[in-house]
Formats: sequence, C-alpha cells, structure tokens
Amino acid sequence: MSPDTAIYVLELIGVFVFATSGALMAIRSGFDVVGIVVLAETTALGGGVLRDVIIGAHPPAAFRDPLYLAIPLVAAAVTFFFHPQVARLGIAVLIFDAGGLGLYTVTGTVKALDAGLGMLQAVILGVTTAVGGGVLRDVLARETPELFKTENELYAVPSAIGAIIVAVAYQSGWLLPAAAAGAAVFVSGLRLLALWRGWRAPGAWAVRR
Amino acid sequence: MSPDTAIYVLELIGVFVFATSGALMAIRSGFDVVGIVVLAETTALGGGVLRDVIIGAHPPAAFRDPLYLAIPLVAAAVTFFFHPQVARLGIAVLIFDAGGLGLYTVTGTVKALDAGLGMLQAVILGVTTAVGGGVLRDVLARETPELFKTENELYAVPSAIGAIIVAVAYQSGWLLPAAAAGAAVFVSGLRLLALWRGWRAPGAWAVRR
Amino acid sequence: MSPDTAIYVLELIGVFVFATSGALMAIRSGFDVVGIVVLAETTALGGGVLRDVIIGAHPPAAFRDPLYLAIPLVAAAVTFFFHPQVARLGIAVLIFDAGGLGLYTVTGTVKALDAGLGMLQAVILGVTTAVGGGVLRDVLARETPELFKTENELYAVPSAIGAIIVAVAYQSGWLLPAAAAGAAVFVSGLRLLALWRGWRAPGAWAVRR
Repeated sequence: MSPDTAIYVLELIGVFVFATSGALMAIRSGFDVVGIVVLAETTALGGGVLRDVIIGAHPPAAFRDPLYLAIPLVAAAVTFFFHPQVARLGIAVLIFDAGGLGLYTVTGTVKALDAGLGMLQAVILGVTTAVGGGVLRDVLARETPELFKTENELYAVPSAIGAIIVAVAYQSGWLLPAAAAGAAVFVSGLRLLALWRGWRAPGAWAVRR
Repeated sequence: MSPDTAIYVLELIGVFVFATSGALMAIRSGFDVVGIVVLAETTALGGGVLRDVIIGAHPPAAFRDPLYLAIPLVAAAVTFFFHPQVARLGIAVLIFDAGGLGLYTVTGTVKALDAGLGMLQAVILGVTTAVGGGVLRDVLARETPELFKTENELYAVPSAIGAIIVAVAYQSGWLLPAAAAGAAVFVSGLRLLALWRGWRAPGAWAVRR
Repeated sequence: MSPDTAIYVLELIGVFVFATSGALMAIRSGFDVVGIVVLAETTALGGGVLRDVIIGAHPPAAFRDPLYLAIPLVAAAVTFFFHPQVARLGIAVLIFDAGGLGLYTVTGTVKALDAGLGMLQAVILGVTTAVGGGVLRDVLARETPELFKTENELYAVPSAIGAIIVAVAYQSGWLLPAAAAGAAVFVSGLRLLALWRGWRAPGAWAVRR
C-alpha cells in the first residue's frame, strides 16, 4: 500500500468514526433518521468543508469523492440499528476518534499550507478541520460544545500542538511523509494520554479565586 | 410565460413562503424586527447559499438578483403587521411550503449537477437547498430543528427521493423540463400526502424495543 | 499616518474589542481556554469571513494577514487573566464596540460593492460583517442572539442606515475617504445615542395589542 493509499484508507476510517459520534448524538437527542444522517454527515465532514470553503477549494474535498459522503450514510445505518452496541464500544471509539483527530489535524494543516496560507492561518485551519465537525454536531443537537467543557480531557490542545509542529516542519522543508505520520501519531497519543491521565484545559484564571 | 419565467416566479413565491416561516418563528421567539428580518432572509435563502458556497458559485444566486433579498424583507414586513392572520393561514402555508420544498429540491440538484458534481453529491446539495434554511432558522431561534423531530411528518425524505429521481434522469439525459417539473410536483405531493396521512420517519431502531 | 494605515489600525482595535466580547461570553458560559479562544476568534472575524465566503474572496481577509488571527489570541489571553477588570470596563467597551460596529459596517459594505455586488446585497453584507460575529458567538454559547432581543438598544439598525448611506454615496461616486469616515462615525454615534436614550427596535406589531 502506497503512503497515499494508506492516508486515504485512514481518512475513510476517520470519517466513519466521526460520523458514528454524530449519529450517536442524534439518537441520544431523540432525533429521527433524518437527524441521524444529517449529524453523521456534518460531524464527519463539517470541519473539512469549513476549511475548504475558507481556502477556496471548490468543491470541497468531501464533495469530490462520493465515498466521503457515502461512508457517513453507512455509519448512520449501522448506528441506527446497533446503537446500543456501538455506544458500548466506549474505549475503541475513543481510540479511533483520537486517530481521526491526529489525521484530520495533519491533512488539514498541510492542505492550508499547500493553498499558500501562512503558518498561523494553517494551524487554525488544521485544528478547525479536526474539531469543527464536532462543534457543528453539538450546535445542531443544541448541546454545549464538548470542545469547550472544562470537565472534558484535552482535545483541541493536542491538535493545536500537532498543527504547529506540522507547520514549522513544512516551512523548514522537513515535512517528509514520515514526519507527517509522526505528527498525527503524536496528536492521537497526546489525546489518549490526556484521557488516561485526566488532563484538562483550565477555565478562566480569576474564576478560581 | 416561458418555462424559465415560470420557474423564476415559482422560486420567488417559494422565497416568500419560506421567509414567512422564518418571520413567524422569530415572532414566536419574541425577537425584535431585526430578528424577524434575519430569520426571514436566512430561512428563505440559507439553503441555496450553503449550496452555492460549496459548489463555488460566487456570488451565490441569492446575491445576484436583488429580488431574492428584497422579497424576504416584504415577507418580514407583512408578517410583522399581520402575523396573527398569517399564522392562521395554516393549510395554505403548508401547501405553499410543500411547493417550495419541491422546487428548491429540483433547482438545487440541477445546479449541483450543472456544476459537475456527482450524483450523490448533487442529491445531498439538492436536499440541503430545500431544507438548509429551515435548519439555520431553528439554530438561530435556539429550537430543536423541526427537520429532526420524530413527531413531524416526512419532509427531507420526499426531498431526497425527488433529488434522486432528478439526478438519475439528468445522468441518463432524460431530464427534460417536463420531467423536472414532474419531480418537483412529486416531492410536493409526497410531502402533502405525508402530512395528510401522518407519515413520519422513525427514530433509531433499537430505542423502540 | 495615511488613511489606509489609519483604517488598518482602527480595524485591529475593532478586532480586539469584538474578540474581548467573545472571550467574556465564553467565561460567563464557564468554557475552558479552548472555548475562550474559539469565541474570541469567531466573534471578531466571523462576520467578515461570512462576507468574504459569500463574495468569493479567497482566502478571506481574516486569513490573509496573520495579525487578524493573532489579535484575538491576545484578547483571549488578556481576558483569561483579567476578565473581572475587563468586564468592569463597561462603558469603555461599549464605546469601542460602537466604533467597531461603524468601521466594520463601512469596510464590509465597500468590499461588497468593490466585488461588483448591487446596493441591497452590499448593505446586507455590510451589516453581516458588523453583526455576524456576535450572532455566531451567541449560537456557539447557546444564548439567544443579543442582536434579536427587544430589550437591547439599537445595534443592527444604525449599521443598516450607515450601510445604505455608504452604498448610495458609492453608487453616486461621492464616497470619498472623508464620506466613508463620516458614515462610520455616524453609525457609532447613533449606536451610542441609542444606548444613552434607550432606543430599541420593536417586536412584532400586533403582539402589543
């Protein structure tokens, strides 16, 4: 399997896992099958669509290859029938989700840099790629965005650190495929470490006086 | 009246009816005149703007012809003064809304296909055109999206079936104006039939055990 | 200081003030530092990004100059540590916010007209530039949009009047830098006058019978 094929397969797995989290949220919210499909698609693809709309990649990657739109349909169907089992996968889902976080961060940052954007812009779009779909999911389900909760373990922070590493390596000409893969693994690992050790981002400083 | 003029007039009627539903929601939410105007514009035009931003049609159709933006202002003004009467139109509004659903579905799907997108992509953008404004309306008004509620009659499902018919006919070279009109009427009719017969989309399967 | 430099400096001040309002909302909502940063960025830049995505300016202005993205990070950091003091600035923040409203309205309207859009379209995009970020802030924080509340003093209305003045002057060829500056000051002044005199936009007419 070539590196490109490997990335493609990993991306499709990431799409599936993110879509599953959207479908589960729709089911917890009591939505019908339409809501399940919409949240599956939005969670899986919303971050990348936001990035591509901002950098002007038309149509967005999610609309260039029908598999990107088809896989959330499959995830929605599986979750529709087997959601108690899917919800019980717990740790497996968290691991795959961390994998998606790392992969989306790296591909999103690289796409923004390839489009000619500066480092800070690329870092922000890399993180947007990775976390934007989940925020859209929570907005559609009328939930407080998971991303912003002080009781949740680090999610955007590992993504931001990984995006900074990728952007610095890219600008220095060191972003070989192995380095990109390393950054993705680093993001995923840091996310899982945060889950395991209970690392959280603080709320505003003076509130804790 | 040429077919193009007929479509244009029907589209403007659809814009007016969708805008009215946004204005009514704003009034029910106790919003001021600014909220009434914003929800009228967003409900009427949000789905098409999403579609055009995704396919890269700049500026979106809603911003190419001032009538598209002006008609929601008229709808907002009418609803501002006569909303008890408008709210009482009940069945008439549902019929016009079903008409808008059919028309938006067909024009949205065709625009996506014309832009070179594949069938699945065009189906999803056709449905987005038809239902996206209503979802944005509900998000802005902090309501659970009507589109996702198990107690509501089928809305996105007729749109999706119609979009599939249009996409298949387009790819087969059979999408003559009469066929497109037929698909729009089919969507509207199926929506009204669902309303009349109480057809609903199910929630997740295992929940009902 | 040339007029262009003056506008640039004023814009950056506007970005800082709008970002602060996003950061304060995140803190009031109990969000962590990620939420503080996301709301700071979205509030400050969301309206302009919406405008640029609609007119097809890729990448949006907010992503062309790293300062636009960096200043909300600074505002988020300052608010993170000193939010009780920032929240107590009260009147100063309202004055700067009114300044940002005027400036964003004028630059947003002019950018839309420069992109070839019609007057009504430009007015709507000018107002979107000025108020869009605040609406996104409220949606992300799950608050009723401040913009729509009948108990809040006029905000979008001064912006709309200013945008109309700018669009008319532009089309008449009278939009010299001094006229644009005058329109921005007019918007800011009208907003402050509305705050001082308690002018509000009405809710729907018949509700008050």
